[in-house]
Amino acid sequence: MPVFDHKDTIAAISTPPGVGGISVIRLSGEKARDISLLGLEIDNLEPRYAHFTKVVDADKQEIIDDVVVIWFKAPASYTGDDTVEISCHGGYAAAPAILELYFRLGARPALPGEFTRRAFLNGKIDLLQAEAVADLIHAVSDSGKKLATRTLEGRLSEKVAMLRHELTDIASILELELDFVEQEINTLDHHEVLVKIQKAKDHLLALHHSYSGGKILREGALVTIAGRPNAGKSSVLNALLAEERAIISHIPGTTRDTIEELFVHDGVVFRLVDTAGLRDTVDPVEKIGADRARASLFDSDLILLVIDPSENNLSFEKEFLLKYNNKDIIVVYNKSDLGMNVQPIACEHSVSISALKRTGILDLAELMAKIIKENHQLGGETIAITRQRHKLALQNSLSALERTEEALQNNLSNEFLAIDIREAISALDDITGLTTSQDVLNHIFDQFCIGK
Amino acid sequence: MPVFDHKDTIAAISTPPGVGGISVIRLSGEKARDISLLGLEIDNLEPRYAHFTKVVDADKQEIIDDVVVIWFKAPASYTGDDTVEISCHGGYAAAPAILELYFRLGARPALPGEFTRRAFLNGKIDLLQAEAVADLIHAVSDSGKKLATRTLEGRLSEKVAMLRHELTDIASILELELDFVEQEINTLDHHEVLVKIQKAKDHLLALHHSYSGGKILREGALVTIAGRPNAGKSSVLNALLAEERAIISHIPGTTRDTIEELFVHDGVVFRLVDTAGLRDTVDPVEKIGADRARASLFDSDLILLVIDPSENNLSFEKEFLLKYNNKDIIVVYNKSDLGMNVQPIACEHSVSISALKRTGILDLAELMAKIIKENHQLGGETIAITRQRHKLALQNSLSALERTEEALQNNLSNEFLAIDIREAISALDDITGLTTSQDVLNHIFDQFCIGK
Repeated sequence: MPVFDHKDTIAAISTPPGVGGISVIRLSGEKARDISLLGLEIDNLEPRYAHFTKVVDADKQEIIDDVVVIWFKAPASYTGDDTVEISCHGGYAAAPAILELYFRLGARPALPGEFTRRAFLNGKIDLLQAEAVADLIHAVSDSGKKLATRTLEGRLSEKVAMLRHELTDIASILELELDFVEQEINTLDHHEVLVKIQKAKDHLLALHHSYSGGKILREGALVTIAGRPNAGKSSVLNALLAEERAIISHIPGTTRDTIEELFVHDGVVFRLVDTAGLRDTVDPVEKIGADRARASLFDSDLILLVIDPSENNLSFEKEFLLKYNNKDIIVVYNKSDLGMNVQPIACEHSVSISALKRTGILDLAELMAKIIKENHQLGGETIAITRQRHKLALQNSLSALERTEEALQNNLSNEFLAIDIREAISALDDITGLTTSQDVLNHIFDQFCIGK
Repeated sequence: MPVFDHKDTIAAISTPPGVGGISVIRLSGEKARDISLLGLEIDNLEPRYAHFTKVVDADKQEIIDDVVVIWFKAPASYTGDDTVEISCHGGYAAAPAILELYFRLGARPALPGEFTRRAFLNGKIDLLQAEAVADLIHAVSDSGKKLATRTLEGRLSEKVAMLRHELTDIASILELELDFVEQEINTLDHHEVLVKIQKAKDHLLALHHSYSGGKILREGALVTIAGRPNAGKSSVLNALLAEERAIISHIPGTTRDTIEELFVHDGVVFRLVDTAGLRDTVDPVEKIGADRARASLFDSDLILLVIDPSENNLSFEKEFLLKYNNKDIIVVYNKSDLGMNVQPIACEHSVSISALKRTGILDLAELMAKIIKENHQLGGETIAITRQRHKLALQNSLSALERTEEALQNNLSNEFLAIDIREAISALDDITGLTTSQDVLNHIFDQFCIGK
């Protein structure tokens, strides 16, 4: 992230690019009100009142557009700084012309996520909520959207605050003990502290475990379609996509591999990867394909193993099931219209379909959604962490607690106890942004779109 | 256009689809305020005040999003009806969830352009201004945007009103005469009326002529790249596109042929058509190409005739120039780095370039912009009609005036004079929408996007 000044007045178009009825330009910063007035026909703004006016380029004596302008007076604004929102005609012309005028009048281009970063810096939201803003904007499923909304409402922050409270409770006992040590009185009830630590660890662990579900709600469930050549992997993929007539094939701003196809069933987003053609080989180019297939299988939340039932033996499939026995696998008997030649293979989940005749596809989708929901606890009111950094911070907090535990059990010096418990707290503060480093902040906000 | 009721409360997302900071949902109609409150946490809305609140699905007891809500009380709104605008988080999830809630709460989906249609029906804007809204949204160049803004501000409507005033002035003289005829007094000064008609015709004709420029400002100038096979037509196209690094390759909502490429130079939008491969042939598929090439050449505002200077003779090119001598043509000597073998051909405009070495490309673009600007009077403050229907209406008005003129000169009965002059006025009223048929209105508003 380049060097920037939090006092600058920043401006950007906050609506998506493209043809539409309305575009919104947002200015925020100390001079947002003054600068915006320089380009308006009116010479005063009332807080939170929708003014009909025109944006006028005084230099060129030219009306740029009819607009509605609202001034959100600090601190009652999205960023916490003075903010002005200008609604103009949509499309590729009006909003860029207005933005260009305001750059000339003293605003500077907002960096990606800079409005939200200011909201964070001004204490309007914590880091979990800032991330939830990005998740909400990029959400493609209703369940993913709901998780982001809950986090934005502060539900996850409350949970972390509760954990922090438990840890500071333990810390205060230990630190009280430190004070007493100076007075040479030992009052520490080891058992009581160990019980509290165990309870805190359980809570931390539960939140840590919510990652698999949170990740799926945020990014979708990775489903790899495997099987022998000509088993019909691609036709299974296409049948699934056709069933749902995927409304979204590519979401800008996310970092998905181009070979993934998105589809949504029963509120679950699936990222389908077809391994067709990605098989073991000595050809270096095909090698990349095979490596990718293996990586995709390794990362999968679910594997579809497609079987052509006219095959004579299923030794390949049996070996595959053995190799990936730690994964959720659905055996998909394709070409069910041709009848079965083989004995069905032993597997927890299986379904017969005909990609050609479009039968059984919905059953397959249902089963996929059911497995993902059950195994990742995607219930109605899930509160979950969604990022690797949350998971790592919780691991750090857990490790520090384990060290505290050990130190207690070994009757180590109280200073050690205090340091460890403070580390456990600090790890939680990294999650909410209280102690997060500039580098991590830069990384988080760089992934936002401009205008948010 | 399906049957619809102007009293319904309609709702749509008014910002473009896609990832962005803000999306806006618009509700308009008699019950816009009441229906919007059903989904909000607050229970009252002040006119034009920006309320921070939440959209809540009461049935599911679920917060959908944090929003800013503004009620524009009729008639002080875009449509002229009660209108509520709800700004929520951008992206694919929040706005559709809010919209779906409001459909359940009693709003119905807005048809394309229905908000603007209501503004027209409520007399907030005339038909020229309604069309300008669509043009503004779809504008890709600054000059096209400015023309739309001027029309939206009412400058073209004023011009049409002025013309209408001239015609009603003539009509009143003729109709006064009709009254006097009944009293058997003849006071008509034929010469005076003929002078007035001639003046009105001049004004109508000037506006009629503005069509070529208006069309170019709205749609861009059609430029066909012609030349022999291997003259380098495609490389000229690519060189031009690379020079401007075309920001827009496809504008949704417009009906351009897919073989056109857009590029903007010096405020002029060019729609480039490469006729490479589109040559005369007996093969029926290639025949389509040849027909297209001829159609494109016929419609062109400018033709680039690409010549390979290493050719031995230019008989094809000379024939081409003769055939299209009613068109603006630039002779483009490509491969200028290879030197010239031929005598330059006689032509008003020519330029030497090397598509390969990227030399002369900017000169070519300059010349293209200069020719289009000069020949279509694309000055700074152009007021222009932009649609075939405007042009036809002006033609009808002109024809009616010519009949009035003839009738006067032939001393025809005054009834004929009155009928013709009223027809001339009615044709103008078709332009602004005073007398426009439902079919034409449907056609115009169907081309809008939903949400405008």
